[in-house]
Amino acid sequence: MIKVVFFDLDDTLVDTTRLAEMARRNAIENMVRHGLPVDFDTAYGELLDLISEYGSNFNRHFDYLLRRLELPTNPKWIAAGVIAYHNTKFAYLRTVKGVRRILLDLQRNGYRLGIITDGDPIKQWEKILRLELDAYFDEVLISDYLGVKKPHPKIFQKGLKNIGAKPREAIMVGDRLYSDIYGAKQVGMRTVWFKYGKYADRELEYLDYADFTIDSLDRLPEILRGLKFEKESEEGSDKEVHAD
Amino acid sequence: MIKVVFFDLDDTLVDTTRLAEMARRNAIENMVRHGLPVDFDTAYGELLDLISEYGSNFNRHFDYLLRRLELPTNPKWIAAGVIAYHNTKFAYLRTVKGVRRILLDLQRNGYRLGIITDGDPIKQWEKILRLELDAYFDEVLISDYLGVKKPHPKIFQKGLKNIGAKPREAIMVGDRLYSDIYGAKQVGMRTVWFKYGKYADRELEYLDYADFTIDSLDRLPEILRGLKFEKESEEGSDKEVHAD
Repeated sequence: MIKVVFFDLDDTLVDTTRLAEMARRNAIENMVRHGLPVDFDTAYGELLDLISEYGSNFNRHFDYLLRRLELPTNPKWIAAGVIAYHNTKFAYLRTVKGVRRILLDLQRNGYRLGIITDGDPIKQWEKILRLELDAYFDEVLISDYLGVKKPHPKIFQKGLKNIGAKPREAIMVGDRLYSDIYGAKQVGMRTVWFKYGKYADRELEYLDYADFTIDSLDRLPEILRGLKFEKESEEGSDKEVHAD
Repeated sequence: MIKVVFFDLDDTLVDTTRLAEMARRNAIENMVRHGLPVDFDTAYGELLDLISEYGSNFNRHFDYLLRRLELPTNPKWIAAGVIAYHNTKFAYLRTVKGVRRILLDLQRNGYRLGIITDGDPIKQWEKILRLELDAYFDEVLISDYLGVKKPHPKIFQKGLKNIGAKPREAIMVGDRLYSDIYGAKQVGMRTVWFKYGKYADRELEYLDYADFTIDSLDRLPEILRGLKFEKESEEGSDKEVHAD
């Protein structure tokens, strides 16, 4: 019987990819507005290349963008980018559609909830607190604090231990087939792949580790009802339960 | 004849000290609200001590605050501090009272305007652009880009050169007797000490370098009118001008 639902954070609870794209577009737009002598498409394309090479947590994107464009360093242009980037991130931070309603529904049905995420712990907590999501969760685990990253089993085992559940009592919901789904499956959890955001068609070689695939979180309560039915049959319940 | 007015940025054009105090108070308040097990006064006092020892540009204030309070590191509390700090800085960034009106007045009267400031160039430009002050100024010089800090003469000389003025054609307005007033005087500029913010009663050993002392920027147009009169007499103008 499933008692605990673990969620990944980025692109599962928080609409990160969409927000990052808006923030980057607004940053370039504001840099051009303040005199960056390059057209939007050229600068934005170069920024995307840079991010794919240096990673999204690299903290000198705008600085390096000028180098790539063979422009002199210019703190005014960089500041214009930083301002628009941060303003967008602050103003448009949102949960993925349906998140708050579904979390309430799961809580009402007695499930305990947890977050298992990678990333910088302070930045991850910033998103959780800005969205006031903290009250929903019994456990928030950020892998950096254990010195590992998903899919390392340690982070999932720690999550189970902290919340007091056995692997088969827990289900992991996440957008990444490798880190979330393969990772959780390794330690014996059930898995729901949320096909959403930039990983919606990547890492498909791990698709076999997904017990369920959904493209909307609205499907989650239904899956949990189904699993309840399955378990009760397996355990030889005398009362037959039909999923409606 | 004065043709150029240079301003310092922090606590001269931008109300930095007041803003920083608000931001720090709100940060501690939000940390306590999210579970920091210390009362407000203890935590705030400790933060002020930390800032006076490590400097205000140290970027691990909240992290070190926990160490000083002998508490375990906790990314949730740190994130709570960071959020409230940034929200306050974004929402309450303001010019010093009267700035915009006075800049317009000086421009209408034909003065060219410049900023000469220390500090991180991107952060300084962030303040200028967020307040949309850039359009008022012909020249913005941030000392870091020359590898020096005020009162080093190089930054003042560079300001004069870029704007095309001789030292006696320029006046420097700033809140710091050492960096702004002593610095500008060294290269031969006139000086106006703006007695404001946390340096209003410090560095008084450099008071002699201030040609004028004001506690409101509203006095600036009047001082400039006075200097006009003085210069024309010195140059032996045949027409006597009386300041009204």
